[in-house]
Amino acid sequence: MEPIKVSLSEKDIPKQWYNIAADLPTPMLPPLGPDGNPINPDMLAPVFPMNLIEQEVSSQRWIDIPGEILDILYRWRPAPLRRALYLERYLDTPAKIFYKDESTSPPGSHKPNTAVAQAWYNKQFGIKRLTTETGAGQWGSALSFACSLIGLECKVFMVRISFDQKPFRKLMMQVWGANCVASPSSETNAGRMILQKMPDTPGSLGIAISEAIEQAVTDPSGKTRYSLGSVLNHVLMHQTIMGLEAKAQLKSIGIDKPDIVIGCAGGGSNFAGLAFPFTADKINGADITIIPVEPTACPTLTRAPFAYDFGDTACTTPLLPMYSLGHDFVPPPIHAGGLRYHGMAPLVCQCVVEGLHTPRAIDQVECYQAAFTWARTEGFICAPETSHAIACTIQEAKKAKEEGKEKVIIFSYSGHGLMDLAGYDNFMSGKLKPYELPDSELEKTEACLKKHPQAPRRKTGKW
Amino acid sequence: MEPIKVSLSEKDIPKQWYNIAADLPTPMLPPLGPDGNPINPDMLAPVFPMNLIEQEVSSQRWIDIPGEILDILYRWRPAPLRRALYLERYLDTPAKIFYKDESTSPPGSHKPNTAVAQAWYNKQFGIKRLTTETGAGQWGSALSFACSLIGLECKVFMVRISFDQKPFRKLMMQVWGANCVASPSSETNAGRMILQKMPDTPGSLGIAISEAIEQAVTDPSGKTRYSLGSVLNHVLMHQTIMGLEAKAQLKSIGIDKPDIVIGCAGGGSNFAGLAFPFTADKINGADITIIPVEPTACPTLTRAPFAYDFGDTACTTPLLPMYSLGHDFVPPPIHAGGLRYHGMAPLVCQCVVEGLHTPRAIDQVECYQAAFTWARTEGFICAPETSHAIACTIQEAKKAKEEGKEKVIIFSYSGHGLMDLAGYDNFMSGKLKPYELPDSELEKTEACLKKHPQAPRRKTGKW
Repeated sequence: MEPIKVSLSEKDIPKQWYNIAADLPTPMLPPLGPDGNPINPDMLAPVFPMNLIEQEVSSQRWIDIPGEILDILYRWRPAPLRRALYLERYLDTPAKIFYKDESTSPPGSHKPNTAVAQAWYNKQFGIKRLTTETGAGQWGSALSFACSLIGLECKVFMVRISFDQKPFRKLMMQVWGANCVASPSSETNAGRMILQKMPDTPGSLGIAISEAIEQAVTDPSGKTRYSLGSVLNHVLMHQTIMGLEAKAQLKSIGIDKPDIVIGCAGGGSNFAGLAFPFTADKINGADITIIPVEPTACPTLTRAPFAYDFGDTACTTPLLPMYSLGHDFVPPPIHAGGLRYHGMAPLVCQCVVEGLHTPRAIDQVECYQAAFTWARTEGFICAPETSHAIACTIQEAKKAKEEGKEKVIIFSYSGHGLMDLAGYDNFMSGKLKPYELPDSELEKTEACLKKHPQAPRRKTGKW
Repeated sequence: MEPIKVSLSEKDIPKQWYNIAADLPTPMLPPLGPDGNPINPDMLAPVFPMNLIEQEVSSQRWIDIPGEILDILYRWRPAPLRRALYLERYLDTPAKIFYKDESTSPPGSHKPNTAVAQAWYNKQFGIKRLTTETGAGQWGSALSFACSLIGLECKVFMVRISFDQKPFRKLMMQVWGANCVASPSSETNAGRMILQKMPDTPGSLGIAISEAIEQAVTDPSGKTRYSLGSVLNHVLMHQTIMGLEAKAQLKSIGIDKPDIVIGCAGGGSNFAGLAFPFTADKINGADITIIPVEPTACPTLTRAPFAYDFGDTACTTPLLPMYSLGHDFVPPPIHAGGLRYHGMAPLVCQCVVEGLHTPRAIDQVECYQAAFTWARTEGFICAPETSHAIACTIQEAKKAKEEGKEKVIIFSYSGHGLMDLAGYDNFMSGKLKPYELPDSELEKTEACLKKHPQAPRRKTGKW
């Protein structure tokens, strides 16, 4: 029998994070301030602690993981690499399908990998309280978990549609001692402004980010900072522990490199966490296809222009060089709340521009069908976000069958779906409809981006 | 650093189940039919397939696990044995605390260990459809999962209070293709009778069992059988894979035997699954304290008489020799739905009578406090049932500190609580109250048991 689970002993956990900025063929474009000039690190100081800002701008290839962070990660790491043998048999594919299982963390996703690191660095810097936003609730619960173990207060602004659909997520955050409110809320200027204009808005990550940043920077004690669960360079770097472990695990069973690497992409951190260590090999000449998968309802990498845009709705962040649907884009209320973001991590966008990553958009109906196939073959119930990676994996496994090629596919199983079953309900009752973003929405994107003439285009992305 | 996780490779998974009936100092009392005489296996044939009935009455010590069952168990087994190092540090105890983590199965508990086996044996016997009951929803989802992978229809009667408190559990069963209804339902004679008398009843496992058995035995095609998630000998035997793995894992890190073994006990299968392989060592002279933990609201082993009683409310099962609160006992609506059963597995009861196991009752407020301590130290959110094992572990770890003894404690982490957060909500908002069963309830127990004079007492259990 071939093994289903590939484990890695605790002593073999990676002791350093991988920083892809050191290896990119072209240097990254800098973030810009409101005046159109590159920002300097000090300008981020009201929002983030300086030790994380140093990571954000670092070009050092390997950065040591502090022992106290590893001590917390050991609770569930190294995470298992599993073989999806039963899906392979069902698809009758010659492909070997592996997945990096991040669902075994206490909050049930990959998010704690960076939450623990961020909470630890903030604590080291003397910070007492973190604010953040959450879409599906995965990030909010991960930061609540991390703050609980490290000893920080935690305030979470949760996108309203998820807040309403997932009452248990809020309870989970409360068990770990966090304060969770629906966004837009009446607690911030940003929230009140949106509520006045759109009282029935389902909310968006962009709005929630604005609220969380506002609460952090207006704390008169100066002891509050903001924490972001994706998008930024240091966040993606903390997630590379996934890909580094996966490489070691594949090597331990004699697989030198995979042929295809797949991950769902909302802000980009889950995808990048698995993909960047393999992208390093691709930069060095390895033949690997690397696919970030997004919903057709929020097709940032596949249909949006590459431009400078704000990370949040209220235009409080620096301008970031990224594919963006426009900072005032409010995505349709699809179930994969973690993939409803108008922008994308600049590092991932840069890899797409360089041709290192090949993005793909898949509709949520196909994704839920894939999630069902998964539950009925592998037996596990995946998160709505994760279903995008599975749908793409199934497409690639079928292609391998057509081509008769024994490819090695690895994808990121970003989290379980045990707290996200409302979408399954809609799918089973036939209420779930396909959603292709109409071109008129992309015209709004153009109008939104034109408001900021300091944001030059480098490339438009139609794949 | 001492390792936090003790793994076992797939090739070292136990290939046989352990049947404690072969080793008990005194032979088991037989189940009795309605006439007061011992039943013969044929009388169970309308309810269970003959291959499982053979296991139920077997006195063979080791029974081979079929390869096709192992093939499904490999999805998550061998399950990790973990060290609760952070709880130890918090309690400042010299005790070493280990737990067998059954929360990593697709449905999130130990229940699939027997669900997969039962579904497989039924399929082998030509059965097309299984009926069952579920309390907290753990068992119902486990059987749904197993039937989905093995290819059987599945019908689940879910105790109404859990059905109402846990809508996502129902969805989970539906994802795996099962049909789940609230019990008492209007689909059976047993259900209709109860609804007429007590329209607002929260339901009970006893009622739900009656409904599930009725639907199985009245199927004119003869292709439906009933499946029970606990209590019976073969069910407990299927769970011994837990304890067998745990013994191998402890041995692999140089621990010959634990000093204390702990598990929560509702019907008894989770507790027995971990405890029986260690009980075998105790029978052979090893000094081990083995503790089944139950809620003070449903104190079967600690306060109920030992007698012959029915396993269900409608008196359709054989009379079983067990501690029982009376087959018409409706337990208070505590959150640990899986521990709300009037009886207890006869094999566990026999071990208690023999002095091999030392039961303990703990109130749910202390249990939720323990669950909170667990979430804030180890980081994981446990099921309400599991919290009973944790509360007892904390009691024993504190005792070890007082005595200054470096004891090895192992407990069964029966499942995660991610779908059972309503109880945490009540606890956090201060609504959860202690519940000690009043003596007047035990008088009702006496009256209930007296209705069946063919049910002799062997011992009354007041601990």
